[in-house]
Parts: sequence; structure tokens; C-alpha cells
Amino acid sequence: MTMTIAFMLYPGLTALDLVGPLQTLTGLAQLDPRFRTVVLAEDRATVSSDTPLLLAAGHTFDEIPEPDVLIVPGGIEGTLAALTDERLIGRIRHAARTAQVVGSVCTGSLLLGAAGLLEGRRATTHWAMRHLLERFGAVPVAERWVEDGPILTAAGVAAGIDMALYLTARLAGEETARKVQLWIEYDPQPPAGGIDWDAVDIPSYRPITDALLTSALAGHPRMLEHLTG
Amino acid sequence: MTMTIAFMLYPGLTALDLVGPLQTLTGLAQLDPRFRTVVLAEDRATVSSDTPLLLAAGHTFDEIPEPDVLIVPGGIEGTLAALTDERLIGRIRHAARTAQVVGSVCTGSLLLGAAGLLEGRRATTHWAMRHLLERFGAVPVAERWVEDGPILTAAGVAAGIDMALYLTARLAGEETARKVQLWIEYDPQPPAGGIDWDAVDIPSYRPITDALLTSALAGHPRMLEHLTG
Repeated sequence: MTMTIAFMLYPGLTALDLVGPLQTLTGLAQLDPRFRTVVLAEDRATVSSDTPLLLAAGHTFDEIPEPDVLIVPGGIEGTLAALTDERLIGRIRHAARTAQVVGSVCTGSLLLGAAGLLEGRRATTHWAMRHLLERFGAVPVAERWVEDGPILTAAGVAAGIDMALYLTARLAGEETARKVQLWIEYDPQPPAGGIDWDAVDIPSYRPITDALLTSALAGHPRMLEHLTG
Repeated sequence: MTMTIAFMLYPGLTALDLVGPLQTLTGLAQLDPRFRTVVLAEDRATVSSDTPLLLAAGHTFDEIPEPDVLIVPGGIEGTLAALTDERLIGRIRHAARTAQVVGSVCTGSLLLGAAGLLEGRRATTHWAMRHLLERFGAVPVAERWVEDGPILTAAGVAAGIDMALYLTARLAGEETARKVQLWIEYDPQPPAGGIDWDAVDIPSYRPITDALLTSALAGHPRMLEHLTG
């Protein structure tokens, strides 16, 4: 039996939220035929990302409604708009009934929250949006990735790669995860080192976050009130 | 004057080679309007990647033939096949005449080599293909990224993010690069730590590399002979 690891595609998402873990878990599928990765969307039309790259899925949700693993990428405007897309949220809710793992990257966890999957669960998201998790009944955690039952949430953008390597090790063992890491040459050397969190005044970014929310949810006052009221 | 940072799209490339630096440098463009990123291909048709995600460019090479920066992603089959795509190689050669920086990720450096840009230059690529750089007159270097004049090459796949942060700092300063890094939350925590290179027997992968080359270049005996003969 092949395990299907599905990635959700929707307009305006952050490209690296999707591609980081997709590349990692496709590396797993290339090494171990017990796994396959797919990208799911409502249809095969090309959609925008938050970069100048356009993206398209290989399959529709109707074709693969119940993957074994579902991973939901995040973003800014596109993801905040998706919070009120009942069809998309319904796809997540439906898949979560049977999936072994429902994961997210960055603000993708807010979409899991909108689907009702974070109630009482520890979860994480992009650092600038972390306080919003409480609005969905979650317990916000400042970790690179957080696993609570079937829910596996990663911090912002690039954290999806770390989470995907963790998931690779969980599904196929640490030796396989190390092989995938070697193949994608994930031996990070940020020129300025890691992030110095002590130097980041997270509350000072709150006006920026609020402005993003107000702009993205201008047509959805109830969701805006839910998140900022 | 806006500086145009262009990414080359072609069929079969490694998605993360493209999206890692694209997300990073688009973060720069979001912070600093002196920069913009674009994705260039022969046309706007959807092309495959080495994952189940399909990709499309926002512009054609004809529309933007002379970007200020050109970054060429790599891959396996798709990139090896591209080595003999004279039109694609010609696009690189043309852009290199006027670009301030011509960069590559992973085996994208082999395409720079095929365009004649690596002659006598220090360069890097994916660890499993590093020996091939000599076939293009380059001096192979085992570093995360290598800058030699206008040529900036990164190691395999994920190394493109580190290279892009370096380039961000060079173009816009270290403070801006740190802001981009914070926004994409690039604070890597590989679950098993970094790669232990002492445990990697690179020559033992040579038969795998040779098999990939033989398969991808089956219809191009001269290039195959050039690389393996």
C-alpha cells in the first residue's frame, strides 16, 4: 500500500511554505516507493503565489479527497482570504477525518484552526501571527514544529523543511531522513547565523499584522472581528 | 532605477532550487522597492518540476532578455537534458553579457558551464556532481556558495537560500538581509543536525551519478562523452 502525502495548493500562498516540505517529502518518495507525494487543488488551473512564480496542481481534491497525510501551506493575503473560503476549509475538514497526519506550514495553521482542528491543541505558526492561534482555541507554542496527536504544525515559511525532515524520520526512520537531507543538501549556513530571537520585539510588529488582517479581510468583517476584536 | 533579479524556469528543474532563492529575494523586493524579482521562461506554458508541482513563468526571455541578476536553478534529468538545449544555453550566454551577477543553484552551475561562463573560475554545485565542473574548465570548490567575479554558484538544492541571503546582504546591506531572514523565519533546526560530511563517501555515489548522466543524455552522446569520457 502506497502512502499518499498530499499538499494543498490555493491562490496567493507562500511558495516556499509549499515547496520546502514538498521537495523534502518527494525526496522520501524517490528513495522509498511506499510513499508518493501529490499536489491538490480545486482544479488544475494555474494560481498565483506570493512570488512571481505561478503554480499548478497535478490532481484535484475530488480525485484524492482522503490522502494519508495532508499538508497545508500558509501565506499572507492569500491565506487570510482563504480563512473564509468555506469550500477550501471544507476540503481540510473532510481530509482530516481520515488522515493520519494533518500538517501545516506558517499561517497554514490558521486554516487548520478555521477547520476546527486546533481546539485545545498545542500548535505554532509564523512568529508575527502566533497570537492569532488562541482565536481558534489552540495553545500557541514558540517551537520550530509542534506535534499534538495527528496535528503537526510548523513555524514560519522555512520551518516547513525542518518539519518535513521530522515527518520523514517518523514515517520511514532516521536513516532515510538523513539520506533525504543529504540529497537536498540541507546543511544550512545562513550568512548571519540563525535568528537572534532576543533581538526581535514581536509585539512591535502587531500594527503590521493588524494592517495585513484588516486589508485581507476587508470583505469579511466577521472573520476580522474574530481575529482582532 | 529598479534592479531586476530574474530566475530561469525550464522543464524538470528541482523546485526548491528555484523557490528557495526566489522567496528570499522576493522578500528583499517586498522590503525595498529598488528591487523586483521575475521568473523567465521561453513562454508562459506550465512546465513540470522534479516534484508533482507544476510551474509557470510570469515573463518570457524575449520580454526581459537582459536582467541585472540572473539565477539558474538546477535539477537532475531536466537539467542534464538542458545542457544540450542550445536555445536555453543561449539565453544564459546572452544575459551574462550585461548582468551584474549570474548565479546558479545546485547543478544549475553546469548550465553556466555549458554557456562558457565557468572557464577558469572557482565554482560549486551539488556534491554528487562536483567533479563535473572540471569538464567546463571550472575549479570545483566544496563551499556553500562561491563568488568569483560576476559568477555566484551555490551548492545543492537548499544551499540556494543561503546564497540568496548572501546576495541580499551584498545588494542591500546586512540589516535588510536579516529582516528578510526573520520574515521567512529561516532559523534552521534540522532534526538530526547538519550534514556530517566525514560520514559521506562521495566517490561511492559515482556510479549513481554516471547512471543518471547516461540515462539523461542517451540522445546526446557528445555531451555524455564530454562529461564522463
